[in-house]
Amino acid sequence: MNDSNTKLVFYGAISVDGYLAREDHSLDWLLGTEGEEDIGYSDFFSTIDIVIMGRKTYEQIMFNVPDNGFPYKGRECYVFSRSLTGSDDNVEYVNGDIVNFTKSLKEKSGKRIWIVGGGEVLYPLLRERLVDEFFIQIAPTIIGRGIPLFLPSERENKLKLLGVTHCKQFAELHYELK
Amino acid sequence: MNDSNTKLVFYGAISVDGYLAREDHSLDWLLGTEGEEDIGYSDFFSTIDIVIMGRKTYEQIMFNVPDNGFPYKGRECYVFSRSLTGSDDNVEYVNGDIVNFTKSLKEKSGKRIWIVGGGEVLYPLLRERLVDEFFIQIAPTIIGRGIPLFLPSERENKLKLLGVTHCKQFAELHYELK
Repeated sequence: MNDSNTKLVFYGAISVDGYLAREDHSLDWLLGTEGEEDIGYSDFFSTIDIVIMGRKTYEQIMFNVPDNGFPYKGRECYVFSRSLTGSDDNVEYVNGDIVNFTKSLKEKSGKRIWIVGGGEVLYPLLRERLVDEFFIQIAPTIIGRGIPLFLPSERENKLKLLGVTHCKQFAELHYELK
Repeated sequence: MNDSNTKLVFYGAISVDGYLAREDHSLDWLLGTEGEEDIGYSDFFSTIDIVIMGRKTYEQIMFNVPDNGFPYKGRECYVFSRSLTGSDDNVEYVNGDIVNFTKSLKEKSGKRIWIVGGGEVLYPLLRERLVDEFFIQIAPTIIGRGIPLFLPSERENKLKLLGVTHCKQFAELHYELK
């Protein structure tokens, strides 16, 4: 591991059965879980220079925080979209290939890029083994159905467990790519 | 929680993406993971009186340990099967409904029942919210495809996180039903 390279990091919460959200994107099963405010998000976010996400994730974030404004202000933010172009007050839209775009971001030196959300954006990045680090918080509910963090894939990613944090009702697993 | 009641417990290892085994049942991604021998299995097993599992899991266990013999000797063992009846040297086959049979086992007092394996046996028990405790060990690999611990379900199970153990490359999460 060369710390001078730019790192691509997943950080996010899932249910015990591996879902990021219900099928309708709701997070009711997650919000208010004891420990949510103490799990170290602000420490994590302070290490982040660039944020990438899919369009659906961006819309969901803006739907959930209309009054407080965009939560990732002050960071370079890119949103992958098949149709939207240009930029708005918060983000720049990217129509190109997720893998190529992210590879070009990773050529910068010494930055940390956060992948917000999973599913369709995470899938091609995992397939190319581009994700360097994972912080996965597990919330104490088996929700049954939802939007999975990991889509089925032919590609395996072997990880190294760097640390485990127990914060009230959350367990956080910290991995790096092996 | 009344400790005099019989408890139904899941204990088992999964990949980071929630699979118990590859689609062909192989565990190559799990075996030899650092910490496997120290994670406390024998302490757990010493608390168990009764073992239940599906026929496929039983066959896989016998396929993997032909020389060492059946690993759950000395316990009452029940294997759910649609076709096999009677018993063999190790187990008694159960053709009836998984939920009704397990409910009748739970009427005994002060026992602990281990559900070995997940998927089709765990699913109806979760649907009826009969599983009292979970010990889930997470091994440090995203395998991509496999046999999931949790099948999609309309039923939610809210849990309480009792403890988190970090043992070399494993994280173990211990929950009880809320």
